[in-house]
Amino acid sequence: MNALSPGSTIGILGGGQLGRMLSIAAAQLGFDVAIFTDEPDSPASRVSARAVVASYADEAALADFARRVAVVTTEFENVPAETAQALIGAGARVAPNPHALAVAQDRFDEKSYFASAGIATPPFRAIASQEDLDAAIAEIGAPAILKTRRLGYDGRGQIRINSAADAEGAFEKLGAPGILEGFCAFEREVSIIAARGWDGAVAFYDLNENEHAGGILSRTMLPARVSADIARTAQEAAQRVLEAFDYVGVLTIEFFVMPDGSLVANEMAPRVHNSGHWTIEGALTSQFEQHIRAIAGWPLGPTTRVAAIEMHNLIGADANAWPALAADPDARVHLYGKRDARAGRKMGHVTKLSF
Amino acid sequence: MNALSPGSTIGILGGGQLGRMLSIAAAQLGFDVAIFTDEPDSPASRVSARAVVASYADEAALADFARRVAVVTTEFENVPAETAQALIGAGARVAPNPHALAVAQDRFDEKSYFASAGIATPPFRAIASQEDLDAAIAEIGAPAILKTRRLGYDGRGQIRINSAADAEGAFEKLGAPGILEGFCAFEREVSIIAARGWDGAVAFYDLNENEHAGGILSRTMLPARVSADIARTAQEAAQRVLEAFDYVGVLTIEFFVMPDGSLVANEMAPRVHNSGHWTIEGALTSQFEQHIRAIAGWPLGPTTRVAAIEMHNLIGADANAWPALAADPDARVHLYGKRDARAGRKMGHVTKLSF
Repeated sequence: MNALSPGSTIGILGGGQLGRMLSIAAAQLGFDVAIFTDEPDSPASRVSARAVVASYADEAALADFARRVAVVTTEFENVPAETAQALIGAGARVAPNPHALAVAQDRFDEKSYFASAGIATPPFRAIASQEDLDAAIAEIGAPAILKTRRLGYDGRGQIRINSAADAEGAFEKLGAPGILEGFCAFEREVSIIAARGWDGAVAFYDLNENEHAGGILSRTMLPARVSADIARTAQEAAQRVLEAFDYVGVLTIEFFVMPDGSLVANEMAPRVHNSGHWTIEGALTSQFEQHIRAIAGWPLGPTTRVAAIEMHNLIGADANAWPALAADPDARVHLYGKRDARAGRKMGHVTKLSF
Repeated sequence: MNALSPGSTIGILGGGQLGRMLSIAAAQLGFDVAIFTDEPDSPASRVSARAVVASYADEAALADFARRVAVVTTEFENVPAETAQALIGAGARVAPNPHALAVAQDRFDEKSYFASAGIATPPFRAIASQEDLDAAIAEIGAPAILKTRRLGYDGRGQIRINSAADAEGAFEKLGAPGILEGFCAFEREVSIIAARGWDGAVAFYDLNENEHAGGILSRTMLPARVSADIARTAQEAAQRVLEAFDYVGVLTIEFFVMPDGSLVANEMAPRVHNSGHWTIEGALTSQFEQHIRAIAGWPLGPTTRVAAIEMHNLIGADANAWPALAADPDARVHLYGKRDARAGRKMGHVTKLSF
């Protein structure tokens, strides 16, 4: 595609912090942004030229939105397939393509996809009944984790199975089609943030080392304590996924690093990612600008990291510490403008750089 | 004052690129921004939570604006005194204070102020008639520059006087109260960007070395080629100005560096400044964040510069080169979202960092 001229309007589905940071990055390149969200007064709407507040099922609103923007992207992966279809049906160019979104919405499809692309995963089985679960545990063994196939996010909808006895009634408790994943006794967690343009050019950021607490990302550090081999394996995996989906934009894959030095893919996010927030100050091109460049048909920017990084999330009441954070000369403070600091809610993040 | 909580609304008078970059910085700290501008579809409005489009003389609109924001600041110095009074009359906290704005609006007041604070200036005289002009030239000598006292900006409203003969009819041509300034055969131009908080804390950025073309800033480079003595003199001058005005926010002073190594103050801008745009990528705290921190009662952030800098402006048609700039890995591209690339108009800037 031809590169979009500055002054073009970029459409973003979703009004959260990722949309907010994407919108700011787009503005810095001279684009206008229109947000489509079902949330009034969303964090992203408040930094954007326009906001449409409507249901993701509102086909008329989606069609109107499609006509007013040069390209549509998304800040969350759980975009209903019908939403993407309505946009495309109305003539919108959508990036990344809805196929990547659909695969990332289903943990079984996602892991099957990794496996078919030669990317190592934990052992996994689709679970549609208690019988499936019992059989899968017999095959995979315990400990294992039973998760819903769809709409799982940040540790919700997961049941740990430590022994065959734990499996009793677990499928009923899950209440939805599931996936059983063998538990990985990993040494650490890493993620790779990669980007691909309309022209097929690919770029990678340095690997992120991540710590989670309660299923939510807590801390990201760079450089990650991994070998060059591991970094290369992660890049190769990302490249295969990007190319197989003819993907345009930023994509993230999370991996477990096993004690034997092997990498096991955990999940992918077809979007900018919390573990890449450090790129705002810590890389020559932020992941947000990179995503905008990619979907706008601009050349990808350099991903060079300029400092050692520690990023930590402000979850729920953590954000109440803003006076101390504001006074810390080492803390680059980002707050997302959320009105209500509910427990578990990502309210902001802090990046520390060591030059 | 107490520090404003994230979620508070910051009001900005003016809708240009400085307002746009201030608004983005405020959003990153979790603030909402309301823009007051007489320009529909302004660059700043398109990245802000709210925009009021009204005349700066509309007292009802100003009073309403004042009631909806926690603090009001400005992105341009030519705010009419009545505008500031209307805001203050309606109970707004205004920073920087209108006295500093008023002095900066009048070149004679500004230079008188510098002189009274012990800051060196070119020789200057107020010119209210042709007789004043003739007398001033006799005293100061030629070459000299005759400028309007008010509303001068980027080289407009200036008459170069190379000899006494050039002065004939010059006051009539100027058509407004003026100031005659002795011409400075300077070696280079530098500027200092300084900030002061409500608590009196002061911070300085490294000195900027600037090049102008046609009266408009063309290029800024850091480190500036000046001695530590010159840097200290500039800081002392800025500190005196900040304290004398009980100033809150970012303030800029432009200086000439003379061949003998002395510094001569040219003008001040009671705001963030084009020569400080490099701070977005090149300093730990950008001048925009610093200004928001100051007016919001937050502690000032560290001003440490992290790289050598070259910033150049994109003026008018320069911005048409965006495809080449987008493809230059060394160029951090900023475009302001202006619809019309008129000659002389600041459309964007590019920062290059050398680590």
